[in-house]
Amino acid sequence: MSEAEVKKVPIGVSARHIHLTQEHVEILFGAGAELTEFKPLSQPGQFAANETVAVFGPKGSFSKVRILGPARPATQLEVSRTDAFALGLKPPVRESGSIEDTPGIRIVGPAGEVTVNKGVIVAARHIHFHTADAERWNIKDKQMLKVRVGGERGVVFEQVLARVSDQFALDMHIDTDEGNAAGIGTGDFGEIID
Amino acid sequence: MSEAEVKKVPIGVSARHIHLTQEHVEILFGAGAELTEFKPLSQPGQFAANETVAVFGPKGSFSKVRILGPARPATQLEVSRTDAFALGLKPPVRESGSIEDTPGIRIVGPAGEVTVNKGVIVAARHIHFHTADAERWNIKDKQMLKVRVGGERGVVFEQVLARVSDQFALDMHIDTDEGNAAGIGTGDFGEIID
Repeated sequence: MSEAEVKKVPIGVSARHIHLTQEHVEILFGAGAELTEFKPLSQPGQFAANETVAVFGPKGSFSKVRILGPARPATQLEVSRTDAFALGLKPPVRESGSIEDTPGIRIVGPAGEVTVNKGVIVAARHIHFHTADAERWNIKDKQMLKVRVGGERGVVFEQVLARVSDQFALDMHIDTDEGNAAGIGTGDFGEIID
Repeated sequence: MSEAEVKKVPIGVSARHIHLTQEHVEILFGAGAELTEFKPLSQPGQFAANETVAVFGPKGSFSKVRILGPARPATQLEVSRTDAFALGLKPPVRESGSIEDTPGIRIVGPAGEVTVNKGVIVAARHIHFHTADAERWNIKDKQMLKVRVGGERGVVFEQVLARVSDQFALDMHIDTDEGNAAGIGTGDFGEIID
């Protein structure tokens, strides 16, 4: 590939959402309950579930927080910093799955509730690369990238984490604060500049 | 000054707020009412008022929206894009004072209410320069700048409008979405890089 090739990446803006363990799915939705697919996400096998929960922080709460499936090994609530202030929490910026020393949250579903003592994060901006995309652009797993978005609220996002897997589809994930700050939404594009 | 001088700028993160005409102050707070100072702002003569109002959009509302004084020639509500979605409005990104073809809003105070047919904006990110700062750094009024903020959510803000006046004090103003996207708050600093 030419050095001059533009490294254009589709962007998905993630609203607040939650991942649940199967154990927590059954506490919240009843014994034997399973998440059901509302619509597929950009990453193969991942989906937005029909099911939602309410979450309660020390200061505020959100109803109808979308669950993303399938069930995972750990329950994790991903919020924007704006959301975190509303909940009354100060979660760190973390890569998905890295939940040690993060705030907990009370989660309420139609069949029960559970309070976790950790799991609330602000997701670190990141790009999923299929192995083929990463090889073509010479990008390594865990590399930190810079991505430019143009327009009237143009920004360059630094500290964009590269995640490479043959299970991934090319997609950059930012949260609603980041999308709003850049004046963009899902379906817009960024360009990897460094 | 040396070419290599770092052009460091203090940043103020603006929460949603409103400017009112004196006529609207009196409708909302009673005949003869005047805004009273709660605390001074970074720009000389400007202040956060003790008075607040509620604002109602087609979808949602906010109570206790801070009024910034003194009274102005036009009433203007400045919100983040996150706030705009909550209100159910799609205001454009605008320089303060540029309110043609913007959405209106219903404003409620303790003594009355007023509905304006325009005036809701998402404030364009900008820097106030005192004339002396602008001359020292060779920056012209209305110039578009790039400002970098480092850290774990590092960003470069493009399209930062320079506003130069001998009535201004050096300060960069961004909204809560922009502050949260960059992981910063009032009192942090940016660097003009272009």
